Amino acid sequence: MSFAFRDNVERMAGYLPGYQPTDRCAVKINTNENPYPPSPRVLEALRQLDGESLRRYPPVLWDDFRRVAADLHGVEPEMIIAGNGGDELLAMLVRCCCDVDRPLAYAVPTYSLYPVLAAIESAPVIEVPFEDERCGIPAGLYQANAALTILCNPNAPTGTLIPREEVAELAGAVEGVLAVDEAYVDFAETDCLDLVRQCENVIVLRSMSKGYSLAGMRFGYGVGQRRIIEAMIKVKDSYNVNIATQVAATAALADQAYFRENRERIVQERQRLHIALGKLGFEVQESHTNFLWARIGGRGAGEVYDALCQRNIYVRYFDQPNLKDHLRISIGTVEQNNALLDGLQAILERSLES
Amino acid sequence: MSFAFRDNVERMAGYLPGYQPTDRCAVKINTNENPYPPSPRVLEALRQLDGESLRRYPPVLWDDFRRVAADLHGVEPEMIIAGNGGDELLAMLVRCCCDVDRPLAYAVPTYSLYPVLAAIESAPVIEVPFEDERCGIPAGLYQANAALTILCNPNAPTGTLIPREEVAELAGAVEGVLAVDEAYVDFAETDCLDLVRQCENVIVLRSMSKGYSLAGMRFGYGVGQRRIIEAMIKVKDSYNVNIATQVAATAALADQAYFRENRERIVQERQRLHIALGKLGFEVQESHTNFLWARIGGRGAGEVYDALCQRNIYVRYFDQPNLKDHLRISIGTVEQNNALLDGLQAILERSLES
Repeated sequence: MSFAFRDNVERMAGYLPGYQPTDRCAVKINTNENPYPPSPRVLEALRQLDGESLRRYPPVLWDDFRRVAADLHGVEPEMIIAGNGGDELLAMLVRCCCDVDRPLAYAVPTYSLYPVLAAIESAPVIEVPFEDERCGIPAGLYQANAALTILCNPNAPTGTLIPREEVAELAGAVEGVLAVDEAYVDFAETDCLDLVRQCENVIVLRSMSKGYSLAGMRFGYGVGQRRIIEAMIKVKDSYNVNIATQVAATAALADQAYFRENRERIVQERQRLHIALGKLGFEVQESHTNFLWARIGGRGAGEVYDALCQRNIYVRYFDQPNLKDHLRISIGTVEQNNALLDGLQAILERSLES
Repeated sequence: MSFAFRDNVERMAGYLPGYQPTDRCAVKINTNENPYPPSPRVLEALRQLDGESLRRYPPVLWDDFRRVAADLHGVEPEMIIAGNGGDELLAMLVRCCCDVDRPLAYAVPTYSLYPVLAAIESAPVIEVPFEDERCGIPAGLYQANAALTILCNPNAPTGTLIPREEVAELAGAVEGVLAVDEAYVDFAETDCLDLVRQCENVIVLRSMSKGYSLAGMRFGYGVGQRRIIEAMIKVKDSYNVNIATQVAATAALADQAYFRENRERIVQERQRLHIALGKLGFEVQESHTNFLWARIGGRGAGEVYDALCQRNIYVRYFDQPNLKDHLRISIGTVEQNNALLDGLQAILERSLES
């Protein structure tokens, strides 16, 4: 048999998700899930699904969700697009904008899915390193002037936030589409959503995996002007979001009181964990997300990571230049964070002794 | 603002799904949904989801589903890929195989999504008309020898079935990948699943929307040798199937007794409806699916379609050459089919009077 896939597909590696321990007792703070369950209204809404709702195709354009989201954000329903997770929205955008002659640009380090999506489209990537620890927009991103620029803001894995005014400036300067990936914005103080009103080329992407505890349900949405939304709709799967997820996301977004309370708990724990990690000798970046980006000198981050795994505690470690002296630690429950701190203390003490 | 999407995206039209009446009393037999609810075990499984399952990312490689499907089909779990509906599997395949130099081939008329997926990849399509009413494999499909050939079998909208031996012959003759889209095979007497054992270039695609009444949950799966499955995994979304859908699909597939009973009811109604439509003057193709492809002379199919809509009865009508004298009618419940027959009788009688 001599069949072949496209060269770019043969060559590329897929995206590598974080490790998923099946043991529910594990302290799993490696993939930025929300440590608390979603609003009780979500389970109530799911319980109301009947056989009739399952056997029928789901709404093609997520009507109920669009209404709730449009209301919350003060935009028209037609300015909203929903996806099977924020990842599908990113894939749609790259599919709309990028090909072998139309590059994708982004600042690094950032979400490692972006180059995978470009590889799928055989599109060149322009990776521009952040210039300093603050992770402001690097000048190279202006110069790249790519068909699609993605700005992960707040950024992963650094947790840093670029002020709205800087993003607005970039939006006005680039000729292509600017996607502001706000997957973590629910834990930040500011956002860029209002840019979509004045900038035809901006789309803001949101995830309900983090702030709304729905990682298991796969739901993200985008807000932008109709021209972008309509192009994305052309390249989406016909019925891209199943009925259970539509119902869950709508219920979760409608319960803003629960969302705010949940967010507050995590922001408080973030503060406590930041200080505690500092006392243990970590250099911790100020975070605007639900994780901390913590640098450890001396004994390598990789070794600490391994030692944590042995204690059934899972954080994220990237064995790559510029990243390999850091750990990315999702904010867990109070108990999970305490387990982490205890584990780290023991590991670091043993390290000093040896 | 001067931003532009890729030319192919600017030019293309998206896929147009069938009309979705929101009125639950409407007789909706236009998109080949199963008229009966899924196995009661599906709702039971969904009821067991808790906040913890929703807040965590779902299994990346659908472990539980893979086990059940591998067991049912007598293959290894690694030979199974799951998708957010059969449509996502088709999209993955076109993404793996097709580009501007690598065409997609299929016989027509068939599922109207195929050319949309090719357009997304800027890939040329080779559309080969069926040669007769039996809808066997046309010689042009051998000659096309495309990077990817899709054979919808049983075919939509004709309802015809190509025997396994003919498919095996095509698989051995083409150099590219052959995808056998078996979305409707649950209502046929034979299938092509065992071809994947002997043919490295064959993948068989299944949908749980029709035979298992899960259109609302979006789930399809493919069975093929590892080389194809691994390439598809590279280009899928990282967490492409949410936890509720994984749980629902697993429960539905495990309940084969319910599946067979459900299937039997539909096959019986198909037979009854076929005969009754014949008596009303339709020329009906023998169907191996859960719909009938019915030709009406005299008063046009379009007019009958409109008159049915006015009675709150929705069938599928394609206003295109070669298709526009047909109606595609999904098999409904006994009551729905009776409502259709009564409606048609009244419409056709009025037509004779006028």
